[in-house]
Amino acid sequence: MTITIIGLGLIGGSLALSLRQHGLADRLIGVEAYPPYARRALELGLVDEIEADLSAAVALAGLVIVAVPVDALLTVLPQVLDLLTDQQVVIDVGSTKSNLLAAVAGHPRRGRFVAAHPMAGTEYSGPDAAVRGLFEGKTLVICDAAASDADAVATVEALFRALPMRVLHLGGAEHDLHTAYVSHISHLTSFALALTVLEKEQRGEQRIFDLAGGGFASTVRLAKSAPATWVPIFRQNRENLLDVLDEHLSQLRKLRELLAGEDYAGLTAQLEQANEIRKIIP
Amino acid sequence: MTITIIGLGLIGGSLALSLRQHGLADRLIGVEAYPPYARRALELGLVDEIEADLSAAVALAGLVIVAVPVDALLTVLPQVLDLLTDQQVVIDVGSTKSNLLAAVAGHPRRGRFVAAHPMAGTEYSGPDAAVRGLFEGKTLVICDAAASDADAVATVEALFRALPMRVLHLGGAEHDLHTAYVSHISHLTSFALALTVLEKEQRGEQRIFDLAGGGFASTVRLAKSAPATWVPIFRQNRENLLDVLDEHLSQLRKLRELLAGEDYAGLTAQLEQANEIRKIIP
Repeated sequence: MTITIIGLGLIGGSLALSLRQHGLADRLIGVEAYPPYARRALELGLVDEIEADLSAAVALAGLVIVAVPVDALLTVLPQVLDLLTDQQVVIDVGSTKSNLLAAVAGHPRRGRFVAAHPMAGTEYSGPDAAVRGLFEGKTLVICDAAASDADAVATVEALFRALPMRVLHLGGAEHDLHTAYVSHISHLTSFALALTVLEKEQRGEQRIFDLAGGGFASTVRLAKSAPATWVPIFRQNRENLLDVLDEHLSQLRKLRELLAGEDYAGLTAQLEQANEIRKIIP
Repeated sequence: MTITIIGLGLIGGSLALSLRQHGLADRLIGVEAYPPYARRALELGLVDEIEADLSAAVALAGLVIVAVPVDALLTVLPQVLDLLTDQQVVIDVGSTKSNLLAAVAGHPRRGRFVAAHPMAGTEYSGPDAAVRGLFEGKTLVICDAAASDADAVATVEALFRALPMRVLHLGGAEHDLHTAYVSHISHLTSFALALTVLEKEQRGEQRIFDLAGGGFASTVRLAKSAPATWVPIFRQNRENLLDVLDEHLSQLRKLRELLAGEDYAGLTAQLEQANEIRKIIP
């Protein structure tokens, strides 16, 4: 199958590597609006060719993967659907779904679109961030599959199961709620933690470098993530994110009060409760 | 040299492995108040023998390493100093220093004590958590070295440089300030994040498991840490921690206001500023 990938960053580029590695694409066509990324994706061999014309790139493909930031998706996905025949399939790989599903709800080719979110990533971006095996053993969430044609869903499931990934079906609204809890809030708190430490260590950057152990590195890692990726995600999942952020602020204030009031038994009880996360993330 | 390690958990056990691996101890004696840990440390071969009597264990050693939680340190370290001769050296490996340094300031054997903090760890605890190579390439902070005898400092530096570790000298108060920023706050926010998600996903544990990618796992990893280790650290570094926690709450509230007010240019500017952490943690 010929596969066209629109957007050759971390996710688009890593998917190209995985699809090629598993022999799932005999021809990979890339569409990339940012010329240095297009050039670099070719140099790295992520795709076989770059096609500047969107309609030509779509016309050649059995499957189109739109891997652009979630704000751009709202424009690009309808454009691709306008170009699509009944024999082709298009997926997104975005981190938010409700707005996107609403944006294409009435489209005559809606059935050819499968809303997909591979739950994997790193804090890096661009074609140089593409890594082999990024999706292996991870979960692909497919949203509102009932609104997609059955053959389109089957094609997408078979392809991602071969990477291999597990497939999970969720409603779009449900997806956005849960990703706010298990992904978006982690990114927001990591950004805030980096800002906190940078503020406190304004004249002590060398000290952070000397002292930072693995714990610090792992909690601030996500703060290296690209604002161009994450601001649109935060924007589109704003209500869920504000809700979970308020819960987080309340939990932090609770820990603060226990510490300020020197209630160490209470603090211990809270930390023991937090330890329950071991049952979920072993 | 015969080395006695008091406390055979993550840090004491991992040090035992490192010292043995680099041929730095020809005999390792363990002291461990919790019988199941003592038994397990022997089974794992972390130490050659367990000595129930503290004075016997200290008498045999050229170097004593006290690797107990920081609250217990305030009792155990003076006991060890009471038993020490001028030819022996004792170190702690605790995460807070000001209280400990104050507790032994007037001790007649103060010079034989070197306050040390190897900046390394994991979220696991007990002898089974001991891992080879935990300290390799990391930083050992030595605090208030001027209050220790020069030969004692030289012995400790030579030993840890051989692991190999880098040695950094800091004042005790300065150490506690910086570790609040680069270690203690990361743990506190991770505990709070776990509590947030557990609260929000009360009936959806399977969903967290299905959806959690690497980002979530890395930010909540520290929430698995032992309360018996961390509550005493938070307690002894309470003032610095409250100060950095207040800064963190203020940064989180700032991000919240930008998102609530839909100021996406402002939010982008904040995230770009957080990206500066890349310069420090590459």
